[in-house]
Amino acid sequence: MKKTTLLAFSMLFSLPTFAGDIEAGKAKSAVCAACHGAAGISVSPLWPNLAGQKEAYLVKQIKAFKNGERKDPSMAPMVAALTDTDIENIAAYYANIK
Amino acid sequence: MKKTTLLAFSMLFSLPTFAGDIEAGKAKSAVCAACHGAAGISVSPLWPNLAGQKEAYLVKQIKAFKNGERKDPSMAPMVAALTDTDIENIAAYYANIK
Repeated sequence: MKKTTLLAFSMLFSLPTFAGDIEAGKAKSAVCAACHGAAGISVSPLWPNLAGQKEAYLVKQIKAFKNGERKDPSMAPMVAALTDTDIENIAAYYANIK
Repeated sequence: MKKTTLLAFSMLFSLPTFAGDIEAGKAKSAVCAACHGAAGISVSPLWPNLAGQKEAYLVKQIKAFKNGERKDPSMAPMVAALTDTDIENIAAYYANIK
């Protein structure tokens, strides 16, 4: 089998990889945990669970709250100070929770 | 123990109840499944998993897509024809998936 074919196969069947730094995300997620729970299971029926959610979706939504594309009076101030790296790390942390 | 105390205890420790009709929601969710997966695990990293998500949160978001409060060009037409009952049933179906 050609090297390129092998590479394609290994990419297809590899475990999901997380773009962000899970440990850094965990540290940064302390502020999220007050509402969304330390393990990503939220404490109110009106707030979403984040555990096991798609990483790219989480990145997209946090950025949408930050730039005002998705409006929520609680979320906007929570994410205002997050850098793109922070957002990727937090998303990786929650997406990685089983 | 007083009857009222017993009632309070039973409410505290009862299993979560779903306001919507899970079976009706399952039937109505066929259109959702194309993107969010038949079992609520989405087929794209950009779309959220719905399995096990909070029921009230799902109701709130579907209504937000319907009334334009939350804007998404894919979701708006999908939810436009749903009644409040449909929305409650679909939310109950996804929230009930483990």
